[in-house]
Amino acid sequence: MSEAEVYAQTARSTVNRLKQRGHYDHDTVHGIIDTAPVLHVSFNPTSFDDDPFPTILPMLGCTGSFTHVGSEEKAATAIYLHGHSASRFMKLPINPPSYLEDASLPGVPVCVAATHIDGLVLAYTPFNHSCNYRSAVIHGYANAVEDPAEKMYALQLITDNIVPDRWDNSRVPPTEAEMKSTAVIRVDIVSASAKIRAYGVGNDKMDLDDQEMRRRVWTGVIPMALTYGEPKPAEENLIEGVPDYIAGWTKRQNEESARYARDIISLKAPKKV
Amino acid sequence: MSEAEVYAQTARSTVNRLKQRGHYDHDTVHGIIDTAPVLHVSFNPTSFDDDPFPTILPMLGCTGSFTHVGSEEKAATAIYLHGHSASRFMKLPINPPSYLEDASLPGVPVCVAATHIDGLVLAYTPFNHSCNYRSAVIHGYANAVEDPAEKMYALQLITDNIVPDRWDNSRVPPTEAEMKSTAVIRVDIVSASAKIRAYGVGNDKMDLDDQEMRRRVWTGVIPMALTYGEPKPAEENLIEGVPDYIAGWTKRQNEESARYARDIISLKAPKKV
Repeated sequence: MSEAEVYAQTARSTVNRLKQRGHYDHDTVHGIIDTAPVLHVSFNPTSFDDDPFPTILPMLGCTGSFTHVGSEEKAATAIYLHGHSASRFMKLPINPPSYLEDASLPGVPVCVAATHIDGLVLAYTPFNHSCNYRSAVIHGYANAVEDPAEKMYALQLITDNIVPDRWDNSRVPPTEAEMKSTAVIRVDIVSASAKIRAYGVGNDKMDLDDQEMRRRVWTGVIPMALTYGEPKPAEENLIEGVPDYIAGWTKRQNEESARYARDIISLKAPKKV
Repeated sequence: MSEAEVYAQTARSTVNRLKQRGHYDHDTVHGIIDTAPVLHVSFNPTSFDDDPFPTILPMLGCTGSFTHVGSEEKAATAIYLHGHSASRFMKLPINPPSYLEDASLPGVPVCVAATHIDGLVLAYTPFNHSCNYRSAVIHGYANAVEDPAEKMYALQLITDNIVPDRWDNSRVPPTEAEMKSTAVIRVDIVSASAKIRAYGVGNDKMDLDDQEMRRRVWTGVIPMALTYGEPKPAEENLIEGVPDYIAGWTKRQNEESARYARDIISLKAPKKV
C-alpha cells in the first residue's frame, strides 16, 4: 500500500464543518499520530446497559506495518499501542466484555486521537478566537499481538518513535519476564481523517472598521510548541555528556516545531464561507 | 462544595495499576483539566448496533461552577465546552441519537480526558522507560446550556482560561449572531480521577549490576513542556508592543512549566511492588 494513498471518506470520518481543514491522505494522518506526545484511546468497557459511558486512556504508540517473513503482501499500516499486561485495556481483546461476544466483530472497536496545539489565535472578538492545531482521529479494531516477531517489531517501533535509535542504544534484548509483562495491541484502521488549522487571524470586517476598539485590543497569534528541556542524567548514569542521538535530536525537534508554529502565522486565513 | 473535597472512587474511576499514582481530590483533577492545552471528549454517536465505534473530538473547555442569581446553593463544579452550533457534538444534546431516547439518562454520557506530558524517562532498558505525565479522566452527562446568563458566564470562563483577562481586553459583548452561532455544553461530573507520574528514572538492580552495559547506555530524563513562542501581531494590529497580560503571562507560564518538568526529575522513584 503506497503512502500516497488516502483513507476513504465515510460518514464516520468526513469533516463536515470547515471542510477545507479536512485531510485524508496517509502521510498527513500517520504523521500527526507519530509525532504526537501522547495518544488518546477511547472504547466502551461494558455494554451501554451496564454503564453508558465510553472511556479514554492516554497511551503511547505509533503507526507501523509488520510484514511476516515470507509474506508477499505488505501489511496495511496499523496503530501499535503498548502497556502493562495487567492493565484493563491490554486485557480487553483477550477477555472481551460480554457485549462484544455476540457481535462477531474483528476486534474491540476503538477510537484513537492525536492532537498538536500549534498556537493561540487571538482575534479582535472572542468569537473569532481559534487555535492552530493538527489533529487526527482513527477508528479501528484492536487485537492483542501474540506473535513474538510482530510483538518485538512493535516494541522497537514504539521505543524508537519516542527517541529515534533509542532501542539499539539501550539494554536489549528484553528478558522473558519483561516480554511477558508488556502487552502490545494492534489497531487495524477502518477509517481515519485529519483536521488542520495553520494560518493567521481571521478578523471580521465589522471589527476592522471599529478604529476606536482597534486602538485598545491586541490581535495576533501566540505560537505554541511542545519543547524538550535539557536532558538530565540519572544519578546512576556513567556516560559523560548527552549522546547526540538524544541531545542533537531534541535540539532539532525544538527548532523545527518552533519554526512551524511561527511560520504558519504568516499564512492568510481563508475567506469566510 | 469545598475544593478540598474528593471524588468518590468508583469501579469506573479507580486507578487499578500503580495505585500510588491515583488522585481523586478536586484541586488536582480540576487543575489538570484547566491547564491542559486541549481536552479530548469521547462519546458514542450512534447505538452500538448501528456503528460500534465511540469517537473522540479535541475541544477547548475548562471547569466552572455557575450559580444563578438568588440561588443559595453553589453549583457543583462542571466542565464547560464550547463550539460551533452547527457541529455534530454541539447538536448532540439537543437532537439526541435514538439510542439515548429510551434510556432516560440525564444527558449524553461522555468522557473528558486531559493529559500533560512532562518528560521522557529513559531507563537502561526500554521496558523501564516511562513518561512523566499528569492526566485526568472524567465521566459525566453533557447538556446544552440554554440559559443566556450561564452561557455568557461559560464563554468568558473559557476565553479567560486560555489567556487570563482576554475577555475584558477584547471586543465584547458578542453580537446576537455570534451568540447564536456558538454553543456551550456543560458536562455534569459523575466520576473523576487523575493519574500522575512525577519522578526520576526507576532502574532495575539487574541493570545496575551490569557495569559493561552501563558504560554505553545513557540513562536519565528529558524534561518536556508546552512552550509559548513570541506573540506575533496580525497585520491589522494597531497596538505597539505586546500587552503584559499576554507577554508577562506567557513568560511566567513558560518558566513555571519548565521548572516543574525539571524539578520532578530529582524526586525518587517509589520502590517497585
